[in-house]
Amino acid sequence: MGLVVALAGGVGAAKLLRGLVQIVPPDDLLIVGNTGDDLELYGLHISPDLDIVMYTLAGIVDETKGWGVADDTFHCLDMLKRLGLETWFRLGDRDLAAQVARTQMLGKGMTLSQTTAELCKMLHVKARLVPMSDDPVRTKVLAGQLRLEFQEYFVKRGTKDVVTGVVYEGCEKARPAPEILEAIEGAKRIVLCPSNPVLSVSPMLSIPGFRDGLRLTNACVVGMSPIVGGRAPKGPADNVMASLGFEASAYGVAKFYEDFLDHLIIDNVDERHRTRIEALGVKVTVTDAVMRSVEDSLRLAKVMMDV
Amino acid sequence: MGLVVALAGGVGAAKLLRGLVQIVPPDDLLIVGNTGDDLELYGLHISPDLDIVMYTLAGIVDETKGWGVADDTFHCLDMLKRLGLETWFRLGDRDLAAQVARTQMLGKGMTLSQTTAELCKMLHVKARLVPMSDDPVRTKVLAGQLRLEFQEYFVKRGTKDVVTGVVYEGCEKARPAPEILEAIEGAKRIVLCPSNPVLSVSPMLSIPGFRDGLRLTNACVVGMSPIVGGRAPKGPADNVMASLGFEASAYGVAKFYEDFLDHLIIDNVDERHRTRIEALGVKVTVTDAVMRSVEDSLRLAKVMMDV
Repeated sequence: MGLVVALAGGVGAAKLLRGLVQIVPPDDLLIVGNTGDDLELYGLHISPDLDIVMYTLAGIVDETKGWGVADDTFHCLDMLKRLGLETWFRLGDRDLAAQVARTQMLGKGMTLSQTTAELCKMLHVKARLVPMSDDPVRTKVLAGQLRLEFQEYFVKRGTKDVVTGVVYEGCEKARPAPEILEAIEGAKRIVLCPSNPVLSVSPMLSIPGFRDGLRLTNACVVGMSPIVGGRAPKGPADNVMASLGFEASAYGVAKFYEDFLDHLIIDNVDERHRTRIEALGVKVTVTDAVMRSVEDSLRLAKVMMDV
Repeated sequence: MGLVVALAGGVGAAKLLRGLVQIVPPDDLLIVGNTGDDLELYGLHISPDLDIVMYTLAGIVDETKGWGVADDTFHCLDMLKRLGLETWFRLGDRDLAAQVARTQMLGKGMTLSQTTAELCKMLHVKARLVPMSDDPVRTKVLAGQLRLEFQEYFVKRGTKDVVTGVVYEGCEKARPAPEILEAIEGAKRIVLCPSNPVLSVSPMLSIPGFRDGLRLTNACVVGMSPIVGGRAPKGPADNVMASLGFEASAYGVAKFYEDFLDHLIIDNVDERHRTRIEALGVKVTVTDAVMRSVEDSLRLAKVMMDV
């Protein structure tokens, strides 16, 4: 069917991807994962968004939370707390293993792409998942006088801060991981998963060459709005967009990507935005765009591949 | 009662120490732990003997195994196995936390002594436990052509190799941890726990100044034979001593330490060795010297403090 490149953040992306992998053969799919929210903790390199996608496609994700490993325990974390360490980042015992394995491979000189491929292979994930870059790009959230690590903002402080700016530290020197630019150039279709535009997709777009690649490709770039009825079903996308001066709506999402977006899937409740979005030169498909089940994921993946 | 210094290996030592701490006030006790069997695994600094003593004195040791944390799970390890890593070293999820915490503290520039003190404090261990050295000393086991890491010999290969030599790598450059030499010099009594002379106590003795300190101190040096009836109740002490040309007996233990040992506790079944041991200038107390219960530990600790 030709190459499909999917740009993925965390939970929302993984939900779409569990449908997409059912209709796109593994060899035709390249999933590019956000690593702007990676962190170093306990000496471990943690890649939360890569893991969410990996666990989901491996069929071992905690479906209720959308992240972490199903039926995981937190015995190591409980003991770390007893030993006086901070434990606000909720790493389960099985989840921890992936971080240990990744860190060990990185320590041996493997790239993040290589470690991701190895972890996916061991978990029998057939689709190719690559980090957006093998170089460190770290999303920092500015909130007034505060400059927060992404996970500090997101998990530790529970997205309670009003975001006044976002910085993708290291992006100037970062290069897209191998394959990505070639894949974007040669793709038949590019799928923008319903992820936070500012916090999950922009880290990728901040890497030199990435956004230009999307502008110049002949592929059809299809997105799904992560904002439905002015709200993000999960996460702080609505608040973050609003506080940074973007409209927190399906229209705001289209506007955010207008320089390269060809088609946007929006929810029925956002029908009223259709005309304004089309005025940006972006085609619109209106449907039930909230994923409550695997069937929803599959149906929406089909919509994104067919429009 | 004056300062007591206890030289400790792993399981056997911990069993005696759970009795000793009941009769020696914390301020009067310094426990020196073997770190010759420390290892680096998954990027973590693991100190098995320090942990056995620490967990035992914290009341959280797995009593059945004698090591690890009671009721621990192995979910992280199971996942590591799934991810293709070696998992012969059985680190439970809670046990892992201590390794993560230790490694993080070492990474911040703390010494092994300082990290040990911090971990013990968090686990409410009142007795002072110090590693034999803050410098790396690594016990290597020679078996014919093989030069094995200690844990490779001990855990991975299950002590099946005939030991033809033992090397304490790094001992020449190592210094005893702070306090130790002063404590040995000023102690009223020095307790040699029933640990493997070659694999658990000799790593300490190999550090310059350590053995001389024991020879020169005015303290009464009291040991308990880890070999009973020619067998080690736990571990390979008997085989290792025999294959290295020492007699695998209570007498062999006395002979091993004869240059500084004042008094040896031996089991009733070893009564026949009494005369030969006394001929070395070492006093002997014969008693039931196998620790099956906490009561045994307390009774034997009293014997060692009273002789």
